[in-house]
Amino acid sequence: MISSHNEPRPSDLGDVRTANRAVVLRHVRRHAPCSRADIAAHTGLNKATVSSLVGELVERRLLRETGLTENRVGRPATMLVLDGAPYAALGMQIGADELVVLATDLAGTRLLTWRRAFAAPSSSPAETVRALAALARRAITRLTGQGRRVLGLSVGVPGLVDADGAVPRATALGWRDVALAADLRAALREPDLAVDVDTDANLAALAEHRHGAYAGTSHLVHLTGGASVGAGIVADGRLLRGARGFAGEVGHLTLDPAGPGCACGRRGCLVAYAGLPAVVGRLLPDTRQDGPVTDFLPEIQRIQALARQDDPTVLAGLADVGCHVGHAASVLANLINPQAVVVGGHFATLAPWLLPAARAEFAARTHAPAAGGCLLDASTLGSSATALGGATAALAVVESGRLPAA
Amino acid sequence: MISSHNEPRPSDLGDVRTANRAVVLRHVRRHAPCSRADIAAHTGLNKATVSSLVGELVERRLLRETGLTENRVGRPATMLVLDGAPYAALGMQIGADELVVLATDLAGTRLLTWRRAFAAPSSSPAETVRALAALARRAITRLTGQGRRVLGLSVGVPGLVDADGAVPRATALGWRDVALAADLRAALREPDLAVDVDTDANLAALAEHRHGAYAGTSHLVHLTGGASVGAGIVADGRLLRGARGFAGEVGHLTLDPAGPGCACGRRGCLVAYAGLPAVVGRLLPDTRQDGPVTDFLPEIQRIQALARQDDPTVLAGLADVGCHVGHAASVLANLINPQAVVVGGHFATLAPWLLPAARAEFAARTHAPAAGGCLLDASTLGSSATALGGATAALAVVESGRLPAA
Repeated sequence: MISSHNEPRPSDLGDVRTANRAVVLRHVRRHAPCSRADIAAHTGLNKATVSSLVGELVERRLLRETGLTENRVGRPATMLVLDGAPYAALGMQIGADELVVLATDLAGTRLLTWRRAFAAPSSSPAETVRALAALARRAITRLTGQGRRVLGLSVGVPGLVDADGAVPRATALGWRDVALAADLRAALREPDLAVDVDTDANLAALAEHRHGAYAGTSHLVHLTGGASVGAGIVADGRLLRGARGFAGEVGHLTLDPAGPGCACGRRGCLVAYAGLPAVVGRLLPDTRQDGPVTDFLPEIQRIQALARQDDPTVLAGLADVGCHVGHAASVLANLINPQAVVVGGHFATLAPWLLPAARAEFAARTHAPAAGGCLLDASTLGSSATALGGATAALAVVESGRLPAA
Repeated sequence: MISSHNEPRPSDLGDVRTANRAVVLRHVRRHAPCSRADIAAHTGLNKATVSSLVGELVERRLLRETGLTENRVGRPATMLVLDGAPYAALGMQIGADELVVLATDLAGTRLLTWRRAFAAPSSSPAETVRALAALARRAITRLTGQGRRVLGLSVGVPGLVDADGAVPRATALGWRDVALAADLRAALREPDLAVDVDTDANLAALAEHRHGAYAGTSHLVHLTGGASVGAGIVADGRLLRGARGFAGEVGHLTLDPAGPGCACGRRGCLVAYAGLPAVVGRLLPDTRQDGPVTDFLPEIQRIQALARQDDPTVLAGLADVGCHVGHAASVLANLINPQAVVVGGHFATLAPWLLPAARAEFAARTHAPAAGGCLLDASTLGSSATALGGATAALAVVESGRLPAA
């Protein structure tokens, strides 16, 4: 039996300093530019502690002093911001028809977003690792050429990811037991680079929690649409991963045992109604004639165009998909009671036509009054939310107050 | 937008002492009898700190020294245990046909378990509050007569409970917007007694996490069978409550939209297949002739007797109920990835006949390999798990390292 991670633990002065460093970094992230006195006033830390911590963080180039001063009585205060220049982090995502790499600095500013068409579902895991490594290496070369140090890289996968960054199963990619983190580390040969793997939904939820319209919300679910459908669950401000990291598996939730057949062998799974191949196959039946779709973007654009022309079949089909999305979101709201379920991927792209039906179904199926305060909404982060979350995840070590190795 | 509860916070020496007090209490709870040296060796706290903390905890009668000494080289060490004598806590539960009050001491030893037949579903909220208060007052009188101080009381309700201990909805009781905690505080007139309310499933999960066969498991779900069906979710060692405390609402999960009608107006909800009235109504159709069942225990005993006689209709019915329980448990396992889903209430009473079918369905419907490491099992805590969890909850303040008011 694994003992709890949240049990009381002995605490010492080193922990206190690390925790307080994290407090200072968080305050500056949210309120920059701000002065040492602001930090002390708002965090409850005393001024001498703030001064010592800020000195260290400036020396390690996590914070920098700006030329700005505060307009106030007495000696002008030097204003602080996060230092975006020295460090960067990478996030990547394996989509249904593309790979994405995205870099941010410590302040969350996007430094680059590159996409490369790549059909991971019809490629081998080894080909995918090679393509990811090549794309990451190009990004690292660009960033180091700008004088930045890349702290880490986190990749989002549409499937189950274990604590070692291996993928026991990713049905949408046809993967079983792929040691993705280890293989990618080996392919990159960058021993100082922290390489992690997570589910696409978890990383999208992190991006939503940091950068989305519901940023800072303590209880948040991101329902990620794609070739698979997954849920990233933020509870009490942290990702809910479960015992082995497999939490959020919602794609094969049975909505109706008499529903359409699913690749898993059952009927009526969420993904069989609302996954990207199901939506394209249903709304654009002509695509089936050409074999499996490998390039989804143009098909989604066709669906958008037909919906804008008020094509009745497409509108009815989208409303039906929306019902199923709303049903799944209601299960998440009833079980997890978040403040928002945010839909991403093609659910967000098609939101103008999906959301009205989804919200009606959601309202009817949530049990607590007013859906327990939960809103159902579309992500505003666009189609690289997972990669953005990957970069956010790769910065977590620094944000927790630990200093990057010198 | 509510900001996160788990964000980094400034830490000071008072927090350190409180945290370390909790560490010492936890170590003694798990490893008593143990010496000051044992505590220092196993917790990483230094001996002087342990000595100071233990002195304070002995003085406040949370720990006591036993006559035992450790058999070892050097000066004999005085052994410590939790002091069970001075304090007690109460847990209560509102069942389908009874009220239960249970008391434990700080060490978790049961001091009393009293049941009173009471048909809450056919009583008014005010009658229920009066009956709860009368039962609690009798228990408090008994405990104070033994020289104990009662620190708190926590009541488990089969319904939604908000952060103020009010019950916006409890379908099984016919309640809407009952200010239970406030009403019970007013009825008890014990201003020094902390009175809290939680869902029956949350308290049962706490009991399971502390006292059950899966005690100490960080990721655990308790699926509570009764007139309603709820899930208490322990994630990372703590209850997952969600934004407004409404997490764990699984009773109206649609298993089959073509299934039996439910009191909620939909069809095929979990509770319509597996709730106590549904199980009794289906397996003992003769009970329907006498109007709604108000006394479930004898009916469950009849079902057990028929099952033991291998009554084929009852066995087939129980297997079918088991399938639905397994289906619901698989949804919880796929979304939350706990180490165990433990079923309680009448699911545990009927486990010999429910579990085989439940486990087969669970295995077939969990998506991760080996169900993500999740076991499906029956609670061993009996029919007062919620009340036991209530007493556990009422001790949480002291266990977190805060000292009881002098």
